[in-house]
Amino acid sequence: MSELKNYHMSVDDFRRHGKEMIDWIADYYEKVDRYPVLSKVQPGEIGDSLADAAPVRGEDFAQILRDVEEKVLPGITHWQSPRFHAYFPANTSGPAILGDLLSAGLGVQGMLWSTSPACTEVETRVLDWLADLLGLPEAYRSTGSGGGVIQDTASSAILCALIAARERDSGLRTNRKGCGGRQVAYCSTQTHSSLEKAMGIAGLGRANLRQVEVDERFALDADKLAAQVKADKAAGLRPIFVCATLGTTSSTALDPIAAIGQICAAEGLWFHVDAAMSGTAVICPEYRYLHDGVEYADSYCFNPHKWMFTNFDCSCFWVADRAALINALSILPEYLLNEATESGAVFDYRDWQVPLGRRFRALKLWFVLRYYGVEGLQYHIRRHIELTRKLVQWVEADEHFEIVAPAPFNLVCFRHRGSDDLNKRIMDDLNESGELFLTHTKLNGRFVLRLCIGQSRTELEHVQQAWKLITTTAARLRADGR
Amino acid sequence: MSELKNYHMSVDDFRRHGKEMIDWIADYYEKVDRYPVLSKVQPGEIGDSLADAAPVRGEDFAQILRDVEEKVLPGITHWQSPRFHAYFPANTSGPAILGDLLSAGLGVQGMLWSTSPACTEVETRVLDWLADLLGLPEAYRSTGSGGGVIQDTASSAILCALIAARERDSGLRTNRKGCGGRQVAYCSTQTHSSLEKAMGIAGLGRANLRQVEVDERFALDADKLAAQVKADKAAGLRPIFVCATLGTTSSTALDPIAAIGQICAAEGLWFHVDAAMSGTAVICPEYRYLHDGVEYADSYCFNPHKWMFTNFDCSCFWVADRAALINALSILPEYLLNEATESGAVFDYRDWQVPLGRRFRALKLWFVLRYYGVEGLQYHIRRHIELTRKLVQWVEADEHFEIVAPAPFNLVCFRHRGSDDLNKRIMDDLNESGELFLTHTKLNGRFVLRLCIGQSRTELEHVQQAWKLITTTAARLRADGR
Repeated sequence: MSELKNYHMSVDDFRRHGKEMIDWIADYYEKVDRYPVLSKVQPGEIGDSLADAAPVRGEDFAQILRDVEEKVLPGITHWQSPRFHAYFPANTSGPAILGDLLSAGLGVQGMLWSTSPACTEVETRVLDWLADLLGLPEAYRSTGSGGGVIQDTASSAILCALIAARERDSGLRTNRKGCGGRQVAYCSTQTHSSLEKAMGIAGLGRANLRQVEVDERFALDADKLAAQVKADKAAGLRPIFVCATLGTTSSTALDPIAAIGQICAAEGLWFHVDAAMSGTAVICPEYRYLHDGVEYADSYCFNPHKWMFTNFDCSCFWVADRAALINALSILPEYLLNEATESGAVFDYRDWQVPLGRRFRALKLWFVLRYYGVEGLQYHIRRHIELTRKLVQWVEADEHFEIVAPAPFNLVCFRHRGSDDLNKRIMDDLNESGELFLTHTKLNGRFVLRLCIGQSRTELEHVQQAWKLITTTAARLRADGR
Repeated sequence: MSELKNYHMSVDDFRRHGKEMIDWIADYYEKVDRYPVLSKVQPGEIGDSLADAAPVRGEDFAQILRDVEEKVLPGITHWQSPRFHAYFPANTSGPAILGDLLSAGLGVQGMLWSTSPACTEVETRVLDWLADLLGLPEAYRSTGSGGGVIQDTASSAILCALIAARERDSGLRTNRKGCGGRQVAYCSTQTHSSLEKAMGIAGLGRANLRQVEVDERFALDADKLAAQVKADKAAGLRPIFVCATLGTTSSTALDPIAAIGQICAAEGLWFHVDAAMSGTAVICPEYRYLHDGVEYADSYCFNPHKWMFTNFDCSCFWVADRAALINALSILPEYLLNEATESGAVFDYRDWQVPLGRRFRALKLWFVLRYYGVEGLQYHIRRHIELTRKLVQWVEADEHFEIVAPAPFNLVCFRHRGSDDLNKRIMDDLNESGELFLTHTKLNGRFVLRLCIGQSRTELEHVQQAWKLITTTAARLRADGR
């Protein structure tokens, strides 16, 4: 970037435009709560507004930034709005954005320890910090038999866990010979769809995933799991893997980790704990009990990119036995050989994941942990949980509404008494208003509204306004005779 | 980020620290060629320099930035140095860094069209632009039967292609029932290891990948491929997939696309073209002929994050028949249902990839294409190819060295006449000097030096200095009696 007249952006121009971009982002956050949360564009509208072909001649940065404002922004659904209550959040924060910027600036590719030792070692250290904060067993530390790694998403983490489980069932030598179609995995009816997808990707077959029924709190029924495993073994199948969830996507239900872990230990199954959403809560000691039984787990995952103020993508994944993971995913061509790898003294994270290349994602996580400190993270987690409890009380106090699932952390599942259609109308009207964005799920076959309070900037006033809008919208639709 | 005393970084502080970070990065690029290219730290050194635990109290941003300078920087191998000639490059550029920064700032998660329409539609449009620039067939356009998507890496792209191929072999219903161990795929002995890894991940078995022999230019021998497919069919196996490479990792060898494509068409095999490195060259019309036969391909991949000045991760992946890809990877739980998806009028890119979530990676690619313009990209591609040709001439003119593979683009494979050990000594001495970083491979069983000239900032002076250092180092080692 140091030369003129060669099409690169000069360093001086980078300083100037970089600061313009920082200001643009700062301005965006100052007004983000004033945009309609859910984009109102129609399919094709954004694409049609863009040129038909790449420009032959380079354009001014100012022109590009103008197009961001005029052409891109209308097509943005504002995940960083304090009125975003849909899905689960994907939170940013100042330190995370700047850690990510540093990663882009350094531009290192950390596929091997030797291709940038800091990229590997900061990641290893920060995941050890987090293992401490979450009270994960010693085995998950890099100083033990396992270790942690950053994946892009919990979907990729569960795929890696599943493949490691598939390969640990070593009599089949699946990695080498291919699947035999007899290996079986288990989850609940509430488990995230990523596991079913991973069964397909891994060649195990989606039909070989057993979705065990849940109890009245939408938690996996451990007795039914044990019975299903026994039945499958009796039928000549090979059970290999169980996924328990801490905080399901539909309703943040909490599967009984210890009971499931004991079954896995007795039956010799790989035990994966998916705490993608709710793992963050366990940073507060008062929720540490949720990890009772996690010592049975072979792998564990939670996503700082959801509720821990660390930009997407950042999914933390630990294994108790790193050799099982590396054995499943390692491959070593000549052009990647180097002394550090051959010495065995280092982690080469490309053997812990599906892709070969990787960026320096640990920087943003390191920045977040250092800037907020543990007490800063705890402050926000507790604040969100408190706001969630308030909303639960308001819903319970309203005769027209009902709570339909426990709300242990930051998600309220509720519905208006009456038809699914009315509830869908309420949701659509709310989202079309632009004042907030929430989504739905089905529980016990009924259409249920999901309102998540986990966005970095959501405060009491936003939740109060949301509830007021929900009740007035519902009243209006009732009056309309719906 | 708008409140004080709540641990968030305030918007004002974000403006200030953001500009400090921009300046830090600008300063870094002004001096990047003065660092030892390959980090000199020992295993554990960086990790040991970091605290044992996350801080309880948040720290100043200035302190964090100081630690970047003092603790992280020594562990960086400088991929952005103009003296980086190792592996293949992972280039940054000003517009890419700022596009990536905007992506972090907006913080949208584009798993579905509806979760930020611009995230999907800018990506679709920019990949249509690139399909034009590369002369890819009409089918690869979003307006045709296929379309393009950004993957993290070519490894993930080839995995998706392989799974789509596996599922298209629909009699087996692998996704549902699991693999049967009889499906076979093909590549050359020079194909990237990611395909062997993908065979394992996909449950097809690494042993079911046939590595066909290459000719004297290290290109796949199409006659041998045809014979192997016939032999496997005769043995009752099911050939499903062939990968051809434009620019292999070892030596940028060019597989014969048309000849391989015709075999795939005749035998009903999925044909994937991996142009991860060299696809960028085809943006120059004089290299368009390399795509002769690409009309036979079912999928195609190249990585702007290598040679097209777009920060990692950005691997562009196209399919001719998007239904085949979506059919293999789609899954639709209730909590992700929405009207746009149900209408069928939009792309939901989570069905085109392994993970569910995705960030707005198209911004950096859009910024690069607009800021450089097509002529800016062509300028740099041609400049790198010209520098490469100069180095080839210098090597050929030196009696002590020999060129061991064709150098069509930006990689020179050469060796000092004599033993492998001498060549390894030369490489190790060069890399320890800190003056440059190059790597090796094996070709025809011999240790070969690989020197890639594709870094954004590499100029004639850097290549001249590199060659001078190589010859003087070799002369010294010869004098030492090695």
